[in-house]
Amino acid sequence: MPEANYHTQHSPFGAFASFTIGLVDSPGGFGQSLRGPARQNIYIGFRGHAQRTWQLLPFLTPPKSQEGAFTGDTTVVQPPRGFDALRPSDYTRTLGLASDTWRADEGRFGFSLLTPFDRVPDPARMPKAAARFHLAPVVTGWIEYDNRQGKEPVELMFGVGNGEDTLRPLTDTSDKLMGFAGGTAFGYATKPARGVTMRQGFDILDPKFRDYRGLLVIAGETALVFTVPAGARKRFPLALGFYAAGPITTGIDSVYAYTRVFKNLEDVLVHGLQEHARYGKVAAQRDRELARSRLDDDQKFLLAQSAHSYFGSTQLMWSNGRPLWMVNEGEYRMINTFDLTVDHVFFELVWQPWAVRDTLDLFVRRYSYRDQHGLSFTHDMGVNSFFTPPGRSSYECDGLEGCFSHMTMEQLLNWILTAVTYAEHTGDRAWLRANQKTLLACADSLHRRDDPDPKKRDGILKQDSNRVRGGAEITTYDSLDVSLGQARNNLYLAVKTLGAWVLLERAFATLKLAKAAADAHATADLLAQTLTTKFEADTGFFPAVFEKGNRSRILPAVEGFIYPLFLGYKDATDRNGRFAPLFKQLSQHIAQALQPGICLDATSGGWKMSSTSTNTWFSKIAIAQHVIRQLFPEAMTDAARQGDRVHADWQRTPGCGRDAMCDQIRSDSGIACGSRYYPRGVSAWLWLNE
Amino acid sequence: MPEANYHTQHSPFGAFASFTIGLVDSPGGFGQSLRGPARQNIYIGFRGHAQRTWQLLPFLTPPKSQEGAFTGDTTVVQPPRGFDALRPSDYTRTLGLASDTWRADEGRFGFSLLTPFDRVPDPARMPKAAARFHLAPVVTGWIEYDNRQGKEPVELMFGVGNGEDTLRPLTDTSDKLMGFAGGTAFGYATKPARGVTMRQGFDILDPKFRDYRGLLVIAGETALVFTVPAGARKRFPLALGFYAAGPITTGIDSVYAYTRVFKNLEDVLVHGLQEHARYGKVAAQRDRELARSRLDDDQKFLLAQSAHSYFGSTQLMWSNGRPLWMVNEGEYRMINTFDLTVDHVFFELVWQPWAVRDTLDLFVRRYSYRDQHGLSFTHDMGVNSFFTPPGRSSYECDGLEGCFSHMTMEQLLNWILTAVTYAEHTGDRAWLRANQKTLLACADSLHRRDDPDPKKRDGILKQDSNRVRGGAEITTYDSLDVSLGQARNNLYLAVKTLGAWVLLERAFATLKLAKAAADAHATADLLAQTLTTKFEADTGFFPAVFEKGNRSRILPAVEGFIYPLFLGYKDATDRNGRFAPLFKQLSQHIAQALQPGICLDATSGGWKMSSTSTNTWFSKIAIAQHVIRQLFPEAMTDAARQGDRVHADWQRTPGCGRDAMCDQIRSDSGIACGSRYYPRGVSAWLWLNE
Repeated sequence: MPEANYHTQHSPFGAFASFTIGLVDSPGGFGQSLRGPARQNIYIGFRGHAQRTWQLLPFLTPPKSQEGAFTGDTTVVQPPRGFDALRPSDYTRTLGLASDTWRADEGRFGFSLLTPFDRVPDPARMPKAAARFHLAPVVTGWIEYDNRQGKEPVELMFGVGNGEDTLRPLTDTSDKLMGFAGGTAFGYATKPARGVTMRQGFDILDPKFRDYRGLLVIAGETALVFTVPAGARKRFPLALGFYAAGPITTGIDSVYAYTRVFKNLEDVLVHGLQEHARYGKVAAQRDRELARSRLDDDQKFLLAQSAHSYFGSTQLMWSNGRPLWMVNEGEYRMINTFDLTVDHVFFELVWQPWAVRDTLDLFVRRYSYRDQHGLSFTHDMGVNSFFTPPGRSSYECDGLEGCFSHMTMEQLLNWILTAVTYAEHTGDRAWLRANQKTLLACADSLHRRDDPDPKKRDGILKQDSNRVRGGAEITTYDSLDVSLGQARNNLYLAVKTLGAWVLLERAFATLKLAKAAADAHATADLLAQTLTTKFEADTGFFPAVFEKGNRSRILPAVEGFIYPLFLGYKDATDRNGRFAPLFKQLSQHIAQALQPGICLDATSGGWKMSSTSTNTWFSKIAIAQHVIRQLFPEAMTDAARQGDRVHADWQRTPGCGRDAMCDQIRSDSGIACGSRYYPRGVSAWLWLNE
Repeated sequence: MPEANYHTQHSPFGAFASFTIGLVDSPGGFGQSLRGPARQNIYIGFRGHAQRTWQLLPFLTPPKSQEGAFTGDTTVVQPPRGFDALRPSDYTRTLGLASDTWRADEGRFGFSLLTPFDRVPDPARMPKAAARFHLAPVVTGWIEYDNRQGKEPVELMFGVGNGEDTLRPLTDTSDKLMGFAGGTAFGYATKPARGVTMRQGFDILDPKFRDYRGLLVIAGETALVFTVPAGARKRFPLALGFYAAGPITTGIDSVYAYTRVFKNLEDVLVHGLQEHARYGKVAAQRDRELARSRLDDDQKFLLAQSAHSYFGSTQLMWSNGRPLWMVNEGEYRMINTFDLTVDHVFFELVWQPWAVRDTLDLFVRRYSYRDQHGLSFTHDMGVNSFFTPPGRSSYECDGLEGCFSHMTMEQLLNWILTAVTYAEHTGDRAWLRANQKTLLACADSLHRRDDPDPKKRDGILKQDSNRVRGGAEITTYDSLDVSLGQARNNLYLAVKTLGAWVLLERAFATLKLAKAAADAHATADLLAQTLTTKFEADTGFFPAVFEKGNRSRILPAVEGFIYPLFLGYKDATDRNGRFAPLFKQLSQHIAQALQPGICLDATSGGWKMSSTSTNTWFSKIAIAQHVIRQLFPEAMTDAARQGDRVHADWQRTPGCGRDAMCDQIRSDSGIACGSRYYPRGVSAWLWLNE
């Protein structure tokens, strides 16, 4: 296993904020609404009896001292001196589902950051106390040293250097806090206690200038220093908070939901310290749940890292008297990209099902549209805190055949699949009934995108929206080659369409719409039958696109089965059931695809979405793995099983790890080529259902 | 004259915000509360009949296209192509007092930014309409082309590329605006009109992807494109706005004053365009005032550049129901540094005298303290939007003898001089009376800092505050050598003390405090007499410090006379009056100092504050020049007169110009060594009194 060397986002729920650290010899720290890690120096370490110099985790780059700007002496270059930047071999790092812990000095030194996520009740009906607990824009943590065998006191440090932007001492605004803040926006604190001191200076390890209280507030580097007496073991609590007041979004005006229950940053930090133990229990519970699962260590790491990045992209706002849920698309910061919503559903239904419902409602209310074939939905709701006008995404452009084209078919399927998955999983019949007309319109739209003439329909979507204006529709796999990029006559979309009809049949049955249910049933059968005719008897594969002699081989051929599988629809997932002939062909397709050089990368052994593209996406691999392990276990050869290790190594080395969880990865090198700092890896939550 | 190559800040009044451009081949743009220029690409130019490619002013660096991050294709590197970055020889630039104008293409193309500053009434009593006019966080401008001789239409462009942070189209939130905004924080706009279009894309000159309205809102580069038909001359208005909602400062809580009269950024921009003509008139009036002055071109440039940077550091807040005036100290962002307040007074008394009064009041109310000798004031009120606790500055540290030590004597003098200058210049007797006790306490404190024992007093301050805790007090010239750095027995401070007693005498007379006035008069005479004994008959110089055989020669020997000179106190500035012997010696001192190798730099010819330091400060040079030209004209040799050209060249070339107006400069190289992006150059406003 390569040396662990990766950033992890430590993020409150819904604050679109992260405290990012972990990449070796790299800064990180507090980032609000960023598309990648911040660039603050982080000082975490100890100075003990055995070591006379500070031993610091390697989360800083020597800052250029600002001292020279004041003194006019440009010869002063003063990085912090007198410390050892610990090497990865000097410490251990353990990433849990809701924690990230470093230990050094034979385990005596410890530092941990917690992401105590929990089931969040509907914020529209959340009492204030619950809202303060669940929505606090705070990350907790601790720093400790076991000095029971020591003969001299040991010092611990937790600090942040914000370079050119100075921090302020929190003691000025709260007598319950020791720590520092960046304006009104972020800060870190511990409880005032004996043995805790504050420092601020140009050189935090050896401050040259001290004011009446020992600080120099014009300097950019700050720290808390904790003393652990000889013979004692002490753990000090930490709270890391964010606060963004006032209007944040445009197009739809909104403020952070937490601003309704927290007055300011100090309120957040005091709360974080007061509830420190309770948050710790929640995080420990999450950690235990993952630790006790049947996943192997690589899978556990992937899921833990994914969950961390997911929360970094979440944003819960308040708009017009009600909650407004947003997930930002990692480095792209597109708002509620539907391609992500549909993949997050398996995670969000566990932790905040109302978020799925609210997002679906907003898609209907504002981000739906009608083209010549009927209803569909936009790719996203905007970008970078800007909500695009009704019926328009930030992404979709005209006259294109590749990236940035429209995704009308894809998003129609996404609404159906997300909606029925939500309603059936939660049993929210009232919502399903309220959306009956939309579901019927979706079914009608699906039919017409097959063919406006009912007699010509075979179940496969092949009618581009007139929104493309001379171009062609694409799928979510926009950056792969044509094997997955083109929507029309696309294998991946066809099987996804099958999933949609299966779910529509159930939804219509639930709604007692017998005729519509029968139609959905018949269409699913027709589509399954059509699909079997696309199978290449000579090769034993399905082509990725049923056009122009395409011979790419793709794993998302089975992605559409995740929905009936997740909902436990036996009839649609029974290999000997109604889709038996199709299953037989897919089994052969997948078994042949999961071979080195086809959909296992010949160099790395990692899973590839397509045989003809080296651009592969972790979140989609995770879904494919789950479907294949559950429905096509015969394809899980040793080589295929090795994938988890490969995928984990990609994420825990800098090729991906410099941007925390990454999704688009070169399958040969393991280096991210897009979708960095990305939330979608939580599709791996499906693995816990195995 | 070297090629003009410098940044200029274009800043609204009191918004602590700048649109900075001008440095060749460098980005700039919108910066909120920054310590230096922003890093946005600015697209300004034209594409005419003669030129088939865009001709752009050189205010951009090729941005790395974000396209590859979406497409996964890392081979795409797409700077804007197909344009010529104009060279300085291709255009003219004219900096006025309130305008900055570029012309190219034989004068047919024009672009201008205006800083329409005006006399601002007291915001505490300002009606809403006046507040909207004076406090609007907006900069106006225009772009034009004279196509009257043309046979084909010409296109003009004004645009901003914000790199990783996308902008949003303003047409979504206002039907009165065309343009783009960065969230809720800044934006630029023109009025919707025929021939104006909006663009947004990865490559703004050749956008590859266009949505239903021709934009790509996930891309970072934006522009307005204006078409000027053949045969026409057209000028299009521009408004560049800022908006920062909610709590901004800590220690003292406050919001921007303009948020009381402007709802949001759109409100600001619409207002800027509606009042465009009126703002244009104000700017033109300012320009005329400077143009018609008797200053030479170098002096005019220095004053214009200074005024631009001054406004970039101004910040008018609202706190506890009243205005809160802040000037930030350039790159250091210390709040209301008293060393600057005392030098800004000559400018601020013209444009916003209430700002001087309010700052003095806040010094008394919160930033005064008493040490063993009595009353004094802090060096500043905080840093980076953080107000330090009462009686404490952000700068002053303990146990030091150089930079970052206390300035108790200096700040005591600064309060006296600023207070009396304000009260006498404005005639605000009520304020003077309200501060009678403070003035008396200041006089008492001055005496005690001379010597606690009245019998031992000679007028010179020599008692360090016990706040230095083992260190020594310094002066504002903290980064120079001991010649100016040490406060005790310091020539500069002694003459400044003389100025303080002269002003106190007047103030006490005004207040009908005859005894105090007589004491001030006597003390001034005593001090003047003492000073004459410090003159070195052998060299014809004063030593800079009356200790340890110091033989540095300094120009600020006469700085203290600026206050009686400014207030028109003939008796104190009459060379044959009460201080005649001192004047005679100072005349010799200055005449000898203003020689190459002494206080004229041997290499550059620029003025040096001290013969023994190459660190020289423009704002202080400006004061010294004024005092010397007015009181010691015999010292103004040709070599001394050349200084203006040297100082102007420093600022209009990148050594200083990369950070707009700079104050601390190496006198040999002309390169800034501190105090960049600095407001204090407006001390040159004094020149207009000559």
